[in-house]
Amino acid sequence: MLQVAIYVFDGITALDAVGPFESISRSKEVQVTFVGRQAGAVRTGNKALALVADKGIDDVRSANVLIVPGGGAPGLDDAISDPVLHAWIKEIDATTSVTCSVCTGALILGAAGLLEGRTASTHWRAKAGLARYGATCSSKRITRDGKYLTSAGVSAGIDLGLTLCGNLLGVELAEAIELSMQYDPTPPFGTGNPEPHATPARVRMIEQMLR
Amino acid sequence: MLQVAIYVFDGITALDAVGPFESISRSKEVQVTFVGRQAGAVRTGNKALALVADKGIDDVRSANVLIVPGGGAPGLDDAISDPVLHAWIKEIDATTSVTCSVCTGALILGAAGLLEGRTASTHWRAKAGLARYGATCSSKRITRDGKYLTSAGVSAGIDLGLTLCGNLLGVELAEAIELSMQYDPTPPFGTGNPEPHATPARVRMIEQMLR
Repeated sequence: MLQVAIYVFDGITALDAVGPFESISRSKEVQVTFVGRQAGAVRTGNKALALVADKGIDDVRSANVLIVPGGGAPGLDDAISDPVLHAWIKEIDATTSVTCSVCTGALILGAAGLLEGRTASTHWRAKAGLARYGATCSSKRITRDGKYLTSAGVSAGIDLGLTLCGNLLGVELAEAIELSMQYDPTPPFGTGNPEPHATPARVRMIEQMLR
Repeated sequence: MLQVAIYVFDGITALDAVGPFESISRSKEVQVTFVGRQAGAVRTGNKALALVADKGIDDVRSANVLIVPGGGAPGLDDAISDPVLHAWIKEIDATTSVTCSVCTGALILGAAGLLEGRTASTHWRAKAGLARYGATCSSKRITRDGKYLTSAGVSAGIDLGLTLCGNLLGVELAEAIELSMQYDPTPPFGTGNPEPHATPARVRMIEQMLR
């Protein structure tokens, strides 16, 4: 069995975690474990959804794949400034064949020291933050640098998960998984790409009207 | 505040619920409540992830929007054959301005009697099942018939959620939400559309190799 650990924390963006989970967990050859700072429920940034971490970091000592999703302040800031968490991430990373982040999860990998000198993707609003950890920010939806696979914001985790399926399970099965998820997206507004859509007016709207 | 109730159950497909949740919950004007048969955790079909229902059906008597995600046997079958659940769905539906399903959630709405004589979308493998409830199956990714908004399988719930944002919150804010989710998808394999990809060989692979 391929062991996949997904780290979850208070403030997490649910789709960052569930996007890659949905594809990789479809294979019978994969066992996914949700891991929290401690075992128990964590809440999304808007508090409306709780996901359960079945294990705490003290219970997990290795994984074939580590996935670190993103989230928002204050939970993300806590994860960025938590040396015990960083030590665990480095310990697990030493055992993985692939280490992944989705969205602002790249900031957590960066804070743990894993992205220094590497090229990585993150949410379009988090690029300056990621650069602080010595990473070169890519505008690609998915970036691979060595064994580090990082994605752009939120929904890009679905593409990261399917890419991972192709790498680990083979293209034929990954194609079947994409079909089983009926992943033939039709974004209703066509505004998901920051270039040219992240205009100052729209960024202000995101800051003022959204949580 | 706009009240959105998302029904969750053992056997649920996580992305069916989290896809629409991720967009609609980003507005400060929306309160999302996860509702289970009873309050407490439910597990996805593959058991790897537990989502917490903060309320049970006895705690919720109305909603502006009801979303019913899908899942797999045996949990889906339980929901399809549960008259107490169906009575609750009809009670809530009598109070909503929009009632939605994602994927095989349409079978639950159908079993509750809400889709008789209506046109609806569902997962490509569930069309025959949906027809049994007197619905006409659409191959569209999103179908609107009166106040019923139904989507195709799994990942189509993201498109449904953003469509709902446009209808309820206005196009400008929905565009900003799509950008905040960086929803500019690039399916790695291009096999998400059942036509022409749901060949007998691939359907057999899905049945044999996937959970």
